[in-house]
Amino acid sequence: MVEIERKFLVASEDFKDQASTQTRIVQGFLNTDPERTVRIRIKGDNGFITVKGKSNEAGTTRVEWEKEIPVHEAEQLLLLCEEGIIEKIRYEIKAGNHIFEVDEFFGNNAGLIVAEVELTTENEAFNKPSWLAEEVTGAIQYYNSQLSKHPYKSW
Amino acid sequence: MVEIERKFLVASEDFKDQASTQTRIVQGFLNTDPERTVRIRIKGDNGFITVKGKSNEAGTTRVEWEKEIPVHEAEQLLLLCEEGIIEKIRYEIKAGNHIFEVDEFFGNNAGLIVAEVELTTENEAFNKPSWLAEEVTGAIQYYNSQLSKHPYKSW
Repeated sequence: MVEIERKFLVASEDFKDQASTQTRIVQGFLNTDPERTVRIRIKGDNGFITVKGKSNEAGTTRVEWEKEIPVHEAEQLLLLCEEGIIEKIRYEIKAGNHIFEVDEFFGNNAGLIVAEVELTTENEAFNKPSWLAEEVTGAIQYYNSQLSKHPYKSW
Repeated sequence: MVEIERKFLVASEDFKDQASTQTRIVQGFLNTDPERTVRIRIKGDNGFITVKGKSNEAGTTRVEWEKEIPVHEAEQLLLLCEEGIIEKIRYEIKAGNHIFEVDEFFGNNAGLIVAEVELTTENEAFNKPSWLAEEVTGAIQYYNSQLSKHPYKSW
């Protein structure tokens, strides 16, 4: 139930040629408080409800709980979410032993591309693809919950 | 996914003799905003996550979505909840064609006893047991989400 992740900006679109999958994601938040975010997500044909706790100081580690739910229920729950529904395409890209999830945002967050890699320990090494740019692990403004309220275009 | 309910204060403990079941409930909130409350509940041996939308003007009707989850997951999620965990015993009491759920609160809400009856339409008639007192349907201070932040003892 603990998720360890590092997050990076993406400087070019070169990653798209390396992607093994791409999936449309629509998501909203029932709570954007970083201490207890509650996210409703439709990813492709699947629905999810996800709760995340606050990060450790390094920003790498958060409690995360997720449950799959029927898409039609996720659609109803999206209607209850705060304003600021997020739309993005997620690309999965294998690099060494890890999978990078790269999110290309649309709408009010268009222009933003962010990559995340999930680790099993905080200090685990991983290959850095050439298109990875500045690390933004722990930077709260890049949390999707914050992007829904303070989108990239408003920065 | 819509819940129609009316809520009453309870003036005496006579209801206890009529109860068919009693179950301990422990619950907390990941969001107490009446527009989108998110509740984590352990009821007896079962865990639940529940989302409720805001009420209609009469206070009778709210969107409600609930999913059963493993108790050990509910226990973990309770740790993420806002301060103000609620403990109560729920009694179920049959009255005519309806079941009243009567909640006797403990801790900072001790002294408060509230009964709810679920209806299929807003105007449906129902028998009123003798121990029902003032109607408080739609009174937000009696929402459990509000009782967690502003408990009865502080009123």
